Amino acid sequence: MLGRRFAFGGDYNPEQWPAEVWPEDVSLMNRAGVNLASVGIFSWARIEPRDGEFDFAWLDEVLELLHAGGVRVDLATATASPPPWLLVKHPEMRPQLEDGTRLSSGSRQAYCPSSPVYRRHAERLVRAIVDRYADHPALELWHVNNEYGCHVSHCYCDASADAFRVFLRDRYGDIDRLNEAWGTAFWSQRYDSFDEILPPRSAPTFKNPTQLLDFDRFSSRELLECYRAEVRVIRERSSVPITTNFMGFFKAVDYWAWAPEVDVVSDDSYPDPADPLAPVFGAMQRDLLRSLGGGKPWLLMEQSPSAVNWRERNAAKRPGQMRAWSYQCVGRGADGILFFQWRQAKAGAEKFHAGMLPHGGTDTRVFREVEALGAELASLASSGLLGSRVEADVAVVFDWDSWWALEQEAAPTRLSYLEGVFSWYRALAAAGVTVDFVRATDDLSAYRLVVVPHLLVAGDRQLEALDAYAAAGGTLIATYQTAVTDEDLHIRTGGYLGVLQDTLGLWVEEFTPPAAPDLAARGGTPPPALAVEGDVLGGRAEAGLWAEVVRVTAARVEAAFVGGVEAGRPAVTSNARGAGSAWYVATQLSDDALLHLVLHLAELAGVERLPRVDGVEFVRRGGLLVAVNHGEEAVTLDEPGEDVLTGAPGRELELGPQGVAILRQAHCGDLDGTRRARLE
Amino acid sequence: MLGRRFAFGGDYNPEQWPAEVWPEDVSLMNRAGVNLASVGIFSWARIEPRDGEFDFAWLDEVLELLHAGGVRVDLATATASPPPWLLVKHPEMRPQLEDGTRLSSGSRQAYCPSSPVYRRHAERLVRAIVDRYADHPALELWHVNNEYGCHVSHCYCDASADAFRVFLRDRYGDIDRLNEAWGTAFWSQRYDSFDEILPPRSAPTFKNPTQLLDFDRFSSRELLECYRAEVRVIRERSSVPITTNFMGFFKAVDYWAWAPEVDVVSDDSYPDPADPLAPVFGAMQRDLLRSLGGGKPWLLMEQSPSAVNWRERNAAKRPGQMRAWSYQCVGRGADGILFFQWRQAKAGAEKFHAGMLPHGGTDTRVFREVEALGAELASLASSGLLGSRVEADVAVVFDWDSWWALEQEAAPTRLSYLEGVFSWYRALAAAGVTVDFVRATDDLSAYRLVVVPHLLVAGDRQLEALDAYAAAGGTLIATYQTAVTDEDLHIRTGGYLGVLQDTLGLWVEEFTPPAAPDLAARGGTPPPALAVEGDVLGGRAEAGLWAEVVRVTAARVEAAFVGGVEAGRPAVTSNARGAGSAWYVATQLSDDALLHLVLHLAELAGVERLPRVDGVEFVRRGGLLVAVNHGEEAVTLDEPGEDVLTGAPGRELELGPQGVAILRQAHCGDLDGTRRARLE
Amino acid sequence: MLGRRFAFGGDYNPEQWPAEVWPEDVSLMNRAGVNLASVGIFSWARIEPRDGEFDFAWLDEVLELLHAGGVRVDLATATASPPPWLLVKHPEMRPQLEDGTRLSSGSRQAYCPSSPVYRRHAERLVRAIVDRYADHPALELWHVNNEYGCHVSHCYCDASADAFRVFLRDRYGDIDRLNEAWGTAFWSQRYDSFDEILPPRSAPTFKNPTQLLDFDRFSSRELLECYRAEVRVIRERSSVPITTNFMGFFKAVDYWAWAPEVDVVSDDSYPDPADPLAPVFGAMQRDLLRSLGGGKPWLLMEQSPSAVNWRERNAAKRPGQMRAWSYQCVGRGADGILFFQWRQAKAGAEKFHAGMLPHGGTDTRVFREVEALGAELASLASSGLLGSRVEADVAVVFDWDSWWALEQEAAPTRLSYLEGVFSWYRALAAAGVTVDFVRATDDLSAYRLVVVPHLLVAGDRQLEALDAYAAAGGTLIATYQTAVTDEDLHIRTGGYLGVLQDTLGLWVEEFTPPAAPDLAARGGTPPPALAVEGDVLGGRAEAGLWAEVVRVTAARVEAAFVGGVEAGRPAVTSNARGAGSAWYVATQLSDDALLHLVLHLAELAGVERLPRVDGVEFVRRGGLLVAVNHGEEAVTLDEPGEDVLTGAPGRELELGPQGVAILRQAHCGDLDGTRRARLE
Repeated sequence: MLGRRFAFGGDYNPEQWPAEVWPEDVSLMNRAGVNLASVGIFSWARIEPRDGEFDFAWLDEVLELLHAGGVRVDLATATASPPPWLLVKHPEMRPQLEDGTRLSSGSRQAYCPSSPVYRRHAERLVRAIVDRYADHPALELWHVNNEYGCHVSHCYCDASADAFRVFLRDRYGDIDRLNEAWGTAFWSQRYDSFDEILPPRSAPTFKNPTQLLDFDRFSSRELLECYRAEVRVIRERSSVPITTNFMGFFKAVDYWAWAPEVDVVSDDSYPDPADPLAPVFGAMQRDLLRSLGGGKPWLLMEQSPSAVNWRERNAAKRPGQMRAWSYQCVGRGADGILFFQWRQAKAGAEKFHAGMLPHGGTDTRVFREVEALGAELASLASSGLLGSRVEADVAVVFDWDSWWALEQEAAPTRLSYLEGVFSWYRALAAAGVTVDFVRATDDLSAYRLVVVPHLLVAGDRQLEALDAYAAAGGTLIATYQTAVTDEDLHIRTGGYLGVLQDTLGLWVEEFTPPAAPDLAARGGTPPPALAVEGDVLGGRAEAGLWAEVVRVTAARVEAAFVGGVEAGRPAVTSNARGAGSAWYVATQLSDDALLHLVLHLAELAGVERLPRVDGVEFVRRGGLLVAVNHGEEAVTLDEPGEDVLTGAPGRELELGPQGVAILRQAHCGDLDGTRRARLE
Repeated sequence: MLGRRFAFGGDYNPEQWPAEVWPEDVSLMNRAGVNLASVGIFSWARIEPRDGEFDFAWLDEVLELLHAGGVRVDLATATASPPPWLLVKHPEMRPQLEDGTRLSSGSRQAYCPSSPVYRRHAERLVRAIVDRYADHPALELWHVNNEYGCHVSHCYCDASADAFRVFLRDRYGDIDRLNEAWGTAFWSQRYDSFDEILPPRSAPTFKNPTQLLDFDRFSSRELLECYRAEVRVIRERSSVPITTNFMGFFKAVDYWAWAPEVDVVSDDSYPDPADPLAPVFGAMQRDLLRSLGGGKPWLLMEQSPSAVNWRERNAAKRPGQMRAWSYQCVGRGADGILFFQWRQAKAGAEKFHAGMLPHGGTDTRVFREVEALGAELASLASSGLLGSRVEADVAVVFDWDSWWALEQEAAPTRLSYLEGVFSWYRALAAAGVTVDFVRATDDLSAYRLVVVPHLLVAGDRQLEALDAYAAAGGTLIATYQTAVTDEDLHIRTGGYLGVLQDTLGLWVEEFTPPAAPDLAARGGTPPPALAVEGDVLGGRAEAGLWAEVVRVTAARVEAAFVGGVEAGRPAVTSNARGAGSAWYVATQLSDDALLHLVLHLAELAGVERLPRVDGVEFVRRGGLLVAVNHGEEAVTLDEPGEDVLTGAPGRELELGPQGVAILRQAHCGDLDGTRRARLE
Repeated sequence: MLGRRFAFGGDYNPEQWPAEVWPEDVSLMNRAGVNLASVGIFSWARIEPRDGEFDFAWLDEVLELLHAGGVRVDLATATASPPPWLLVKHPEMRPQLEDGTRLSSGSRQAYCPSSPVYRRHAERLVRAIVDRYADHPALELWHVNNEYGCHVSHCYCDASADAFRVFLRDRYGDIDRLNEAWGTAFWSQRYDSFDEILPPRSAPTFKNPTQLLDFDRFSSRELLECYRAEVRVIRERSSVPITTNFMGFFKAVDYWAWAPEVDVVSDDSYPDPADPLAPVFGAMQRDLLRSLGGGKPWLLMEQSPSAVNWRERNAAKRPGQMRAWSYQCVGRGADGILFFQWRQAKAGAEKFHAGMLPHGGTDTRVFREVEALGAELASLASSGLLGSRVEADVAVVFDWDSWWALEQEAAPTRLSYLEGVFSWYRALAAAGVTVDFVRATDDLSAYRLVVVPHLLVAGDRQLEALDAYAAAGGTLIATYQTAVTDEDLHIRTGGYLGVLQDTLGLWVEEFTPPAAPDLAARGGTPPPALAVEGDVLGGRAEAGLWAEVVRVTAARVEAAFVGGVEAGRPAVTSNARGAGSAWYVATQLSDDALLHLVLHLAELAGVERLPRVDGVEFVRRGGLLVAVNHGEEAVTLDEPGEDVLTGAPGRELELGPQGVAILRQAHCGDLDGTRRARLE
């Protein structure tokens, strides 16, 4: 984006303010270093105040002012929220909940993604906007819709039912194949024709799991179809890059399918500033975004300059925290830092959401921090960060199908897919290991270690790829609840895991998740907590949530359960497989034990590890080592090189709370693309 | 009411019992001292068993019996709960929830307040009742409907939508003004005509805040229109006083608008007998009721003789507790004590709700306490309490708009308006200070201190009135979240507070509410709790829920935040303003700190303070000092004067748990209406 | 069943698997000792894939294979879950929730029990099945529907409304009687005709309690009508015994009304293996099942071989636990042990529910335990257990009307009927006392002690029977909340209890349930917990949940409340009544105090008591003493006789965790039917 500058700016909603304010906006944008503004995201009702009548005069003026002020424009297609007149005219377009409740206008995103009415009107609107602005000199980027699926990802209306049937016909061809895949012989659910199928509306008890999974797949796909339809219209007239803003780990939308269809990956990110785990979760989110784009630079399309307004309690960002988190993004591959929104709103549901220009005006901490960051980013244009890549030795397999399926009801125990992945990410981050996210079928050959947490839903192709990775010399780690089913959610009978049984040298006889502590304590003394023990874990450790009966065929037991009926059963195993090895982890380890295991594995696999300093995040991008102190205390770094922000040497470099250093380290200057060589 | 007697009695529902029981009822009422009975509140289905057919014979007989027994009648208009036949005939009259659910008959109050069908049938019923009984010799009072809005305050049906549109046309005139007020430029919510507007039905996410606020205003107004319509019918034929029973701090109904339209303010009050804070909350409720009527005597229309039936656990009142709470009402301005209900029901949803005449009959504690109270109140007829007023030096601004708005979603943090007000009331009560409730635009000149908690929604007129109060010599205290918006819920940009910035000598830069403790503790040690420190608070104190960045322009910092990023920021400030002063409190203080501050302010402002004895409530009415011991232990009073209940001297007067004394104190005998003189 | 063998087997759903698997199924069934398979429970959609088209070929083959393998068949009527095509064709058949939500197909049991469409199609299906298989040689038992009401027990649709009106006309005859019974004079609920009555749909607040109770009665009755309709069709052609599987203490269905209509009582039972109270709750459930059939042997129709899949956390059964629980059933009267299901499912909502043949195959703990139990039960065929009865000296009155009513809203406090009953059962079990469940109007003369917990709803006939029992020499114990109302839920005024006032020698003045501890602690120190004291309780004990004011007329106070306002009031009383005595317990005693009281009462009444060993359950059936060690530790028994399982002597018999012994004790060999003699 923007050639050789970091993009800097935010959502700009001039329609919320009188035109007199607009010139001041542009002038203050200049002062703050804003070079990119997202315009028109919620302007449908303003642009098309009545069916088919378009009013672009105001937008012409806004774009002209921005252009004159040197601010480039990320122009929205304005389809994110249909105007009231459209819902009044076509009430059938309203989203429908699974219990039949219809959602009305009066907030935002009130449309069924499958609604032909919505799509027809959205396309007409996009065409009008593209016709008018395709050649506008300020245009830098097209911003399609906004946060697809944020509030309405699944719709259960009749139009959705029709579309779901089309999806299923495509997927299964004939009804017998669907009946087989969905296991409809169970509970007398057999369909005699596609016409009998409905979305998984409210039902007396547990719904068909494969129907639910297919409905998740369908819903993600329908949103993508909305996106694709807009892209087609844009491409009739414009070759300007296109994006739509993702939302990090957003369950309802499988971004692996979306990423190839955007020209620029962009992300909205709102961690809770008061959450001590937010920095490491944030790092994980940045790594996902970079990975979605195959390592390409991406844009932080939205973050809040300080507090948001939609939690029960909305903490403000501490002094320096917004800057620190911005550099986390830059370090992890972002080429732009943008905010929601430019001028804090005066009315509406987000008036308490911070803005770059707060209610209090320019004499405020928030505006000063924005201004300073804008200037600082401008100064870093030629630092080597911009446009460069982040390298990782380790990959974590992330899979939306498994996310959807693992969190279905009627499971062995209630698990959180994201918590499971995050526990591994935390351990890897604490060990100083940089991570990419991948799919099992991606090219894994460049990674020294591949972690596969809870890949519940796994097709043969995926399992064969993982096995091949290990056989070719990689180190594979799979956790409990991996490859329990195939893509149809059919159990892999005979011990689960499919071909991974050979890879891992074991099979699983039975799941034995521990009871909830409060239940186990009924009627007297609670049983001792589940524990595991093994050198690779640093001794004995608590293990919550999960246990299972592992039957080792070839594997070596690295750690075992202790106490209770699980005593002595394998908890962590390793197995030689071809030129590599494969590990299995049969429980949820405590953070400490997992860190111990990760350090052991990293050592074994020869994984590069960054420095480890309490509270400090490190990441290497384009030969620069970015350090961010998220802790409450100042720390002293002791690294080679010098800080490009201050010129200070990396040795004995003091970093206060929220402090950032970007160290240019001579020996890493030219490693881009030569990583394998460096490591050998 | 009732000339020179305290009203005493309760709801009387003879239709629940065979006619043979009625003479016994009247005879026992006489024994219990009952002189007023509320009749017919839920009699619609009995009076009008079929559409347009009226049966008054039974009611004639009941009124005749009561009249013969000397019991006066508070006659209901019987519109509180429509009969099943009406809902079967007109299902469109059923209330509709925001998700579209329709509510059926089978409980009570099943009508949409805006329903033309309901209103037409209700008016016909009222006319029939008034025609028949307007001149009945037993008639003392008209009781319109019952607990308006108790279960159905907001209806989302199409009839409500129509009425809402009428309300909005009246309020805004044209749709552009509404769009401006509602901030519909946000999230593409612009309306092209009033016809597109709906009640705030279920929507994908946060609804338009001003729409919500207007819907609250509308809903309170629609209920008032129901009341007004009945009053109009009554006034066609009768000049007997009219009331409808309020419900204290009832969020859905803005009683400031209602109070001028009732001839007698009356209240239903059901604090939990097991709640240790109930006595002080009860006192606050009595003070509101008195204040609604501008200080006029009011009626306790309903309380329970002992337990209620609608909580999860329904504690009985302890021996003496009903009497103690009754005197709380009398001390705070009530001229009548009534109950729900006379004879404990044998069937139906309230059969476990206590009655004056319990299931167990007359040989019961409850009946004996009722009987004793009836006799005692009769003996107090000429004590000087009846008809006299309570005087207060301090006023607390109470505002329904701010209540509605402060508790909307999408706010800086989840706050309870009533908890905020109650924290001040508790401190004032603990300091021995009597309080009136007021609106900001009322005449405040008689008050030495005015507290303004969380007046979130404040028009210029209100702020100017508060400023003028301070400038004229008053002491004004405003808390955080005051004057954040105007009446349209538009932010007062540039530091909030509007003209109060000058009054207080400060502006507010940013809200920084603290994180929830459980979140802040994630991943390690929890941060220290937010604290404040200052002499006016008695040193250091914890401060929960709220913090903000106050920017002092002229104010003096009386207390400051300590520790963390807030360290040193102003928490309590004072400012000279004309002949008076203005204080600002920027956090939620602990009870101890707030009491310390209140004592300081009362001292400064020369506020009269009543005695302070642990567990004992004091209030002065008509020259008599009423003392009620709510504590678990006996206490000894040491006051001048003598107890009119027992003749005992106030010096060394022992007061057991739930004990009451009413001290006639010579030097206060003639202060009515001469308060200002006394204080100077 | 099955002549002189224990039934052993489970649900068999061959339609979930390819036909190639079926012969292996039968072969493995033989290996596991399976002699009874429940077939076709969810086969409607397979048997009738299109309206009126039946396909029996597959089922012919399955039955033939089973028959050839010597496995008898419990053949389902297949009506438990209608196929999608039926709901698509007749959407009016969908169940409706009280808020109007309609439930769709896609899970199971999606039908309104009152739907004429459902019933017509179900009867046609049953007729087709009976026509085809009535004379099949493998047929052992008819299995009507499945778990009636499990997910849809109450339907609020218009068809249900019609049926409810028919039910009410039958019950009340005319509308005046209904109005009287329902107390519709309260809250203006009077009905002018039956046509105005609806199911208790969503309403503004508490619904009419008697309407709710009648709707519970109606809903249980409608399900029974579904059952009866199928039985009528079967009986047109077949005299093979009929069952339908009960679900133990299932609130929605009053099994007292059902039990006389099944030829074999059968039960589905899924206690949580991780719940330490599950063994004693399980014992209570077995005793209910035996009692429903009047002491006849019954079948455990479904249990899980290990984990289930529908809890939040689904613990596996520990080694031996399935066997131990199976013997609990056998000891308490079961003549068969069956499972859900034979082969663990590969797809669908229950794929994680354990099967006799697990995902892992035959080399698994679960299959080995199934196989061993099958063999062991076969070896016990002539042990004397099969077909014999269990004798009990003590009866507990269990009453669905009181269950429904006690747990309605708008009660003195939130109570659990089942918790109350279970607290008595736990104490009786801990005292070594075997229990039958009865209705108050059953013949009680054979019992030495009858416990009546919370018989809230009690008609005169019931109370007279209980009084007569005591007067004839029995020992009667009634608890708080007994006989508070009659069958119409009308209060028994004048002190509650009706004629039991004479039996017990007391009346109840007022209910005074204690406050919730968290409320009572508001604003300072919490009050001391409610306590009681008396020799019969072993001294002083805590008492939670309930207190009341008991007024003794003739009774002796055995224990009293201590402390607080309840101090000195009676808590436990006894009263001589004719040749017997009657006790009253006015609070919820702690487990210890209740055990003390039960031991005292058992002593007084001369009740037989079994051995008491920590963690070990004992029960005597057919002259054999069954002992099951549910504890975590091994214990040593010291009983006469020898273990029929091992031949070991009962003296110094070691029983490990989950261990079972069945002691043949000479002196008890011939006591069947001679119990009274033995005891005298």
